[in-house]
Amino acid sequence: MNAEIVSVGTELLLGQITDTHAPTTARILAECGIGCTRRTTVGDNWDRLVGTLRESLSRADLVITIGGLGPTLDDLTRDAIAAALDDAMESIPEMEEKLRKFFELRKMRMTDSILRQAMKPNCATLIDNPNGTAPGLICQKAGKVVIAMPGPKGEFEPMAKGPVREFLSTLAGEGIIHSRVVRVVGLGESLVEDAIKDLMDAENPTVAPYAHTGEVHLRLTAKANDLLTADKLLDPVEAEIRSRLGSLVYGLDETTLEQAVIRSLVANGATVATAESMTGGQLAARLTSVPGSSAAFVGGFVTYSVEQKRKLLGVPGDTLAQFGPVSSEVASAMAEGTRDRLGVTYAVSITGNAGPTSDIDGKPVGLTYIACSGPEGTQVEEAKYRGLREDIQRRATQAALDLLRKQML
Amino acid sequence: MNAEIVSVGTELLLGQITDTHAPTTARILAECGIGCTRRTTVGDNWDRLVGTLRESLSRADLVITIGGLGPTLDDLTRDAIAAALDDAMESIPEMEEKLRKFFELRKMRMTDSILRQAMKPNCATLIDNPNGTAPGLICQKAGKVVIAMPGPKGEFEPMAKGPVREFLSTLAGEGIIHSRVVRVVGLGESLVEDAIKDLMDAENPTVAPYAHTGEVHLRLTAKANDLLTADKLLDPVEAEIRSRLGSLVYGLDETTLEQAVIRSLVANGATVATAESMTGGQLAARLTSVPGSSAAFVGGFVTYSVEQKRKLLGVPGDTLAQFGPVSSEVASAMAEGTRDRLGVTYAVSITGNAGPTSDIDGKPVGLTYIACSGPEGTQVEEAKYRGLREDIQRRATQAALDLLRKQML
Repeated sequence: MNAEIVSVGTELLLGQITDTHAPTTARILAECGIGCTRRTTVGDNWDRLVGTLRESLSRADLVITIGGLGPTLDDLTRDAIAAALDDAMESIPEMEEKLRKFFELRKMRMTDSILRQAMKPNCATLIDNPNGTAPGLICQKAGKVVIAMPGPKGEFEPMAKGPVREFLSTLAGEGIIHSRVVRVVGLGESLVEDAIKDLMDAENPTVAPYAHTGEVHLRLTAKANDLLTADKLLDPVEAEIRSRLGSLVYGLDETTLEQAVIRSLVANGATVATAESMTGGQLAARLTSVPGSSAAFVGGFVTYSVEQKRKLLGVPGDTLAQFGPVSSEVASAMAEGTRDRLGVTYAVSITGNAGPTSDIDGKPVGLTYIACSGPEGTQVEEAKYRGLREDIQRRATQAALDLLRKQML
Repeated sequence: MNAEIVSVGTELLLGQITDTHAPTTARILAECGIGCTRRTTVGDNWDRLVGTLRESLSRADLVITIGGLGPTLDDLTRDAIAAALDDAMESIPEMEEKLRKFFELRKMRMTDSILRQAMKPNCATLIDNPNGTAPGLICQKAGKVVIAMPGPKGEFEPMAKGPVREFLSTLAGEGIIHSRVVRVVGLGESLVEDAIKDLMDAENPTVAPYAHTGEVHLRLTAKANDLLTADKLLDPVEAEIRSRLGSLVYGLDETTLEQAVIRSLVANGATVATAESMTGGQLAARLTSVPGSSAAFVGGFVTYSVEQKRKLLGVPGDTLAQFGPVSSEVASAMAEGTRDRLGVTYAVSITGNAGPTSDIDGKPVGLTYIACSGPEGTQVEEAKYRGLREDIQRRATQAALDLLRKQML
């Protein structure tokens, strides 16, 4: 079975918004063991949309559409699918009733066009959409399957990851494809590859590395008859990778480094605070992006000016004058000052020059010092990052989270 | 003239990376007055790639490919374009020489496959790539044009926005299409639409609203014979929008709200500091993402716990006990405490509950208080945001930047 994905919307086509739903759908297909061979983006244009759907159906067994299910005249997907499948449209009385109630309850005026959302191709069954008014569709006709999902993120994601994934895994038939991602931090892609090169030659499970800013993800993919068998194939490979890379492995699947760090802190009953210069609050922002982070994260300082490093963190004026704000000594003093002042288990600091100019301290762009102060003392790391301002800042927060993680091990 | 975009790469197709280059290319096409009618993503598969290119060429005058120009066996785009255009490949001696020198200089071993980058379809001229080894291609044959650009961001962006945009603007023929984006903050999309509805009926320039989190962009697009004439068409429409929306317009084109705020601060010789609770450093991070922000941004506090609000910002214990940390009174005290302690012109604070649970203070998820304290006193705004944790946080930093901006006007 092979699939194509069709993203519908003029704003998508013209690049006014970036399509993240198609990649999400492609990943779900892969996880269900269904090959995806093409993705197409078309605008809200009847002829082109119907044409695209017909072409996709001529090549693929399964076509998944995203977007164009709304109530306005621009929303053509429902009718276009019917046209491409040579099917007629019909009204769904219960759906009409539900829409009327929805609008009554919210005291909103219902326009006639809203009722277009209560229409479906004859061959379609509905996918419940608890987060919006447009249901999804599963259309099955003449050996072909078309699945339609709404475009708004809050409606698309729960539907794609819930009922659609479930339906797809039944479609995939006997075998399934199951993936696990092993997340590695603190080693570049080529060195990670060197360490596991022989594992990459295996056919089942396959192992493939993907580089991200400051980390590498190893995707292990097994083909098997069921999930249990797939997991049994994946377990020894994961164990082998862990035995080779040791503590460089920080988590699995969707776990982010900040989640792993918050989890360790909470498990250890430890607290953390931050002191940032060049990253301007990004380290604190990453830690607090984790729901429940307040159990471990106490607070942080953004000391962008030299004076604030002295005033808020108690970095001695002598140290600042002698070594400059971008120095190992100042990074240590920032972390230690924060730990003292906030009474936390760990304090992490970042000072450096993110560019684009090397005006701070005369130190080169990219030079960064990261310190972590904890019960066992203070550790400092020096790094020299290359790239754009945002890359340098991201790498610095990545290294800071990793230093904290290592100190907790 | 109409165009299609073909993104090449298995990692793209399977959703392991999100395609941001195709939207960038689509925007450049629109700016050059060339309609984009379809975008396709295919993997590194010879038959499917050649097939896709043939189909695109059958529908469009211009096809732009992104990716697949690298040195490995997976990189098929060069040869596939030749096949789709029924053209032969030839070697480029100067390019071969250049590649040899590049590798010699860096003392790197050059594999034979690297030399594939010194091949091109007969009909192609090269686009210089100062940021990598693979040149871009402009292929012209039988009335069709194929442009090929490399995939790595650092190579793609300069090429797309430089020589490729330049070439495209010559292709577009006599007329050009020129756009200007008017950025509006502090009013929802439907209210912005109501205010400018009559302008949206005009045909040249056209005016189209696009909603983003916490702001609305109005894209004004003029067709004209040259840039000067286009600008003369756009000027009165921009002026009319400004006269209707007044200070809700914060900037033009690529200017972000944080850039506009930093610019105003610097122009006024003013400084700013932040005190954040629910946004955990994101406000400081947005301000410091602007190069040169150190001229105005002094520092910030992330006071995630109640105790730190008291200790670091001097919020009175009584106020915290009586009104709770998510309150107008605490937001004011946070801003005023920060202004006093750091001696800045303006201090901005955010306190609220970003969810997912309403455990803080028993206040509902999304309830947010934002305060700005400046020379004229302290202003507080209350808001109730809906959506995911990250949306609530983004809206809060957006409102905080806007409050600061309005206080400076």
